[in-house]
Amino acid sequence: MRIYLIFLVVVSLFTSAFSDSILEYPSEIESRHKKAAEEDVNLHCTTWRFAAEMNNLAPWKTIPVECADYVKDYVMGKGYLTDLERVSEEALIFARSIEFSGDGKDIWIFDIDETLLSNLPYYIDHGFGLELFDHSEFDKWVERGVAPAIAPSLKLYQRVLDLGYKVFLLTGRKESHRLVTVENLINAGFQNWDKLILRSPEEQHKMATLYKSEKRDEMVKEGYRIRGNSGDQWSDLLGTSMSQRSFKLANPMYYIP
Amino acid sequence: MRIYLIFLVVVSLFTSAFSDSILEYPSEIESRHKKAAEEDVNLHCTTWRFAAEMNNLAPWKTIPVECADYVKDYVMGKGYLTDLERVSEEALIFARSIEFSGDGKDIWIFDIDETLLSNLPYYIDHGFGLELFDHSEFDKWVERGVAPAIAPSLKLYQRVLDLGYKVFLLTGRKESHRLVTVENLINAGFQNWDKLILRSPEEQHKMATLYKSEKRDEMVKEGYRIRGNSGDQWSDLLGTSMSQRSFKLANPMYYIP
Repeated sequence: MRIYLIFLVVVSLFTSAFSDSILEYPSEIESRHKKAAEEDVNLHCTTWRFAAEMNNLAPWKTIPVECADYVKDYVMGKGYLTDLERVSEEALIFARSIEFSGDGKDIWIFDIDETLLSNLPYYIDHGFGLELFDHSEFDKWVERGVAPAIAPSLKLYQRVLDLGYKVFLLTGRKESHRLVTVENLINAGFQNWDKLILRSPEEQHKMATLYKSEKRDEMVKEGYRIRGNSGDQWSDLLGTSMSQRSFKLANPMYYIP
Repeated sequence: MRIYLIFLVVVSLFTSAFSDSILEYPSEIESRHKKAAEEDVNLHCTTWRFAAEMNNLAPWKTIPVECADYVKDYVMGKGYLTDLERVSEEALIFARSIEFSGDGKDIWIFDIDETLLSNLPYYIDHGFGLELFDHSEFDKWVERGVAPAIAPSLKLYQRVLDLGYKVFLLTGRKESHRLVTVENLINAGFQNWDKLILRSPEEQHKMATLYKSEKRDEMVKEGYRIRGNSGDQWSDLLGTSMSQRSFKLANPMYYIP
């Protein structure tokens, strides 16, 4: 984009210089103003994204209108992928640092949506978080079972299994989506998990933080040691029976309390 | 910087166009490469900063060498201040949303360094986190008692008091620094806190997460409801007796486990 602007400046200057016309200063000033305005939006939206990722914001239902392009550029560009790669690498460093007792009780929890599987194809068609969440539209997408793997998470997933952790999948998806979820996970390359926990009908309206905390409480009661927990929402990570280390994947598109 | 580069391109093109010399493509290509390299560093260091702020990194002692300029530009420029303003505003929205019982048991905890008081003048002289932390040098700075207020935090502090919260200050500073800390806080505009908790000599070598958790446990035992907690380190916020909502202030310069 910036290179493109320089290119425009260059082209317009050539045109003026060679045609002996009056130098087009105004267009340069205009592009400078445009650039300054772009930088302000960039600053504002970066601050918003940081605040969102650090769980500092009040609960939000859609991304800020003025950050629509910013969020799109981030998730479609290098930024999102670079962030996902980094958290996968850091989680692996931690996973390797644990000394195992070898009793099969050391587990790693993964969330599914925006952690193992990417719903980006859905969000590309739905404004990258600018549209209000539409349960029935999203359900239709889930039922197609074609969400791709988040590649850095798949890498972590496999390494964690190789290291000898048991993997528990803990998702806000509902029990009626079990089959399509299993099929989607396997097609995306995920295998050998130990448990796949989905929401039962009576858990449908529980806040995610509570639902996931209760499930972790049960794991701890059963004697499991929750070593790592990877999720894109703080509601995957906070609450009771928190894991030894939590890893927060980036997700600037939606918030689940 | 980018405007400056465009200006350079413009100047070099004029020079070549009007002097009828061969067009200086190489310098344009060079500046384009320089720009691309700058963008890579920017991407890499933004990812590092996100990972640091989201507590995804392994414990670290210094910032990455290649991010020295990036961190400096961030803390000295608009980015840091904008982030601090945002977290203060969001915390205030939450503080206002709580309905009080009026029994004087609703409290807000503030950390001190990089939360209420800024040590940026010290870090300006010490590489913005690039140098290994030097306890005795930093102690000398603390003992001068001249750390300025973080303005958005001072605003939040005053509003929280006005709303009727009790304010507890919970710091990793040592008990022997009580007087200079009180003096510094008052000179910076902070008043009317209810408790100022510093590390006793026997707590000197406890991990911050444990030390702060134990202090919060005591507050809860005494019947206080910890509504909000503002800190620049996750060790201010995580552990036992966590507050109803935590607010993570930006700090890309150092990490305390």
